[in-house]
Amino acid sequence: MKFNQKNAQIGENVKLGLNVRIGDNTAIYDNVITDDNTIICNDCVLGEPSNKYYYDNNYINPTTLIGKNSLIRSHCIIYSGSTYGDNLITGHRATIRENMKVGSDCLLSTLVDIQGNGNIGNYTRIYSSVHICEFSTIGNFVFIYPYTIFTNDRRPPSNIYQGPKIGDYSIIAVHCSILPSVDIGKNCLIGANSVVNKNVKDFSFIAGSPAKFISDIRDIKSFEHEGSQYPWMNNFKRGMPWEKSIYDEWLNNSDKQ
Amino acid sequence: MKFNQKNAQIGENVKLGLNVRIGDNTAIYDNVITDDNTIICNDCVLGEPSNKYYYDNNYINPTTLIGKNSLIRSHCIIYSGSTYGDNLITGHRATIRENMKVGSDCLLSTLVDIQGNGNIGNYTRIYSSVHICEFSTIGNFVFIYPYTIFTNDRRPPSNIYQGPKIGDYSIIAVHCSILPSVDIGKNCLIGANSVVNKNVKDFSFIAGSPAKFISDIRDIKSFEHEGSQYPWMNNFKRGMPWEKSIYDEWLNNSDKQ
Amino acid sequence: MKFNQKNAQIGENVKLGLNVRIGDNTAIYDNVITDDNTIICNDCVLGEPSNKYYYDNNYINPTTLIGKNSLIRSHCIIYSGSTYGDNLITGHRATIRENMKVGSDCLLSTLVDIQGNGNIGNYTRIYSSVHICEFSTIGNFVFIYPYTIFTNDRRPPSNIYQGPKIGDYSIIAVHCSILPSVDIGKNCLIGANSVVNKNVKDFSFIAGSPAKFISDIRDIKSFEHEGSQYPWMNNFKRGMPWEKSIYDEWLNNSDKQ
Repeated sequence: MKFNQKNAQIGENVKLGLNVRIGDNTAIYDNVITDDNTIICNDCVLGEPSNKYYYDNNYINPTTLIGKNSLIRSHCIIYSGSTYGDNLITGHRATIRENMKVGSDCLLSTLVDIQGNGNIGNYTRIYSSVHICEFSTIGNFVFIYPYTIFTNDRRPPSNIYQGPKIGDYSIIAVHCSILPSVDIGKNCLIGANSVVNKNVKDFSFIAGSPAKFISDIRDIKSFEHEGSQYPWMNNFKRGMPWEKSIYDEWLNNSDKQ
Repeated sequence: MKFNQKNAQIGENVKLGLNVRIGDNTAIYDNVITDDNTIICNDCVLGEPSNKYYYDNNYINPTTLIGKNSLIRSHCIIYSGSTYGDNLITGHRATIRENMKVGSDCLLSTLVDIQGNGNIGNYTRIYSSVHICEFSTIGNFVFIYPYTIFTNDRRPPSNIYQGPKIGDYSIIAVHCSILPSVDIGKNCLIGANSVVNKNVKDFSFIAGSPAKFISDIRDIKSFEHEGSQYPWMNNFKRGMPWEKSIYDEWLNNSDKQ
Repeated sequence: MKFNQKNAQIGENVKLGLNVRIGDNTAIYDNVITDDNTIICNDCVLGEPSNKYYYDNNYINPTTLIGKNSLIRSHCIIYSGSTYGDNLITGHRATIRENMKVGSDCLLSTLVDIQGNGNIGNYTRIYSSVHICEFSTIGNFVFIYPYTIFTNDRRPPSNIYQGPKIGDYSIIAVHCSILPSVDIGKNCLIGANSVVNKNVKDFSFIAGSPAKFISDIRDIKSFEHEGSQYPWMNNFKRGMPWEKSIYDEWLNNSDKQ
């Protein structure tokens, strides 16, 4: 049953790298480019066109770039006009709209709903059913937990859209609402079910509705060892570029920061 | 790749208007009627039957009516027994159950979960992942933002179901819970993450859990110009019937109000 | 259009009981066993393999067991390596990962996202878009309402995962966040939009963020009759094993408690 491409459809000017595998019932629209060793599972759509495709016979589908060694799980819909770095992993039924620039080594999990026209850095993990509105900017090594929502319209419905901005290493727990144009700094922690309506300074732990400052994240005790859990990079390595060393060493030897 | 109807299935007594287009892998069950120029994208199900279909050989699928000039995006499941007005637009993966009466010019966005047995007016927009319970009544020109939930059982689990009722022009922000039988008036604004457990008077801005009165909506400043943003109809026109005039003129010339 | 198995795919060592019906476009992977009279609708995936399937040519798909008289609605993804009791009903687009042990007579509704490695008892109903994290334990006769989330990481991201535990007969309303390792007792009621960060004693009604004790559930008035609504088993019978008698009689005559 593996990669028979039964009932698959592949458009024009699709370029598949070496050892790219395509599942059953998957549709790849025009101008999709996928780098080597990427797996596209069953029932996916890559390069989904915008509305104009249906109404304009001269429509040209924008280019979609997907990096190497990626795993697109089944039933994802990925619009055209975006760039994804290497080692992307998606959950099932992710829906990702146009004009996204997504870095390398990201996780976009089950049922994420990413509305397009935004940026996501490297090594960022967006978990189940997170909704990212248009014009959002998300840094590197950010974790966004299930059912959190980003919003971009301060006076809905209006004509001004300003998405949130999330700094590197920040963690947003489940069921949060991040209000329009909010700027969350680096190394922040946002507690579950918070409504964030103001900018948040680096290293802040905030929670509540509206969210208020609780403490510096460096004052939050670890359950795994003596001392603080945050910044989390010294405590958590799985899938991170410092997986085989320690964070500080990696940082000193890298130009990624 | 456009509208080859590859692997499509069309049941009995299906009536498609002029220039209706059907995507690949789409299933249209018995007794679906679709008016002219409607587009049904790939991987959709129209006229999904109730459970009885599977157990009763005499099951007759109720009629489903879809208006003209509609766009049903891919992977939607629309049950039989409902009526949709003209110019319907859906997002991907909408799931809409039986016995809905939906007006014209509505948006039912990505992953909405509409449980059936309800009413939605004209020009109403229901955004991503909104959950509308059975027996809900939603007026005209209503905006419901992502992940808001309507509920209908005050003592769960019980045997009494009373859905909420939302008046014309009201706006419900993200992540709200609208509790059973609540009656939200016209021109209300419900803040993000609110739990609405009481009726709400016309022109109220409420927020919190439980939601409390904050101000009259007419006291909320616009970010786009001097004066108030609300009622929003003088400030927002996109897709509205007053798009090419102004709201007050449209209102005076229409019988829609 | 019923059960033509058009474009269906069935793997090796799949055992289907008497009168099991398989819909169109459905994929059943290796080593799935389905008992008699179960209906698997269109566009489902049963026995979805783990990641290793894609990378390891020696991968053997774990056995998946689905009980009799079940109805798997369309577009579900059910991973391999789990056991489901009889009379399972799913909604559309449920996603259920590996190593679940699910009892009999359960409802897993539309868009549930169950992350695997957990237990669910008998007669438990999990409604739309509920997210159950790994290592969760859910008892018998539990109702979990839409968009509630279970979490398992107290210091995200960390290396310790402890899911919540929910006792028999407990009810969790919409939009709740159940925090890691929380133990909710039997016969509890959790109000809408609550954040539960502490253990909850039997018969407690709690609500808020963080949730606080409001009352004993036996003090909550019914809207259907004189006296209390809770415990709910004397007031609600639909689909329950005491549907044709009364709860106390059933309890005395059963060994299920």
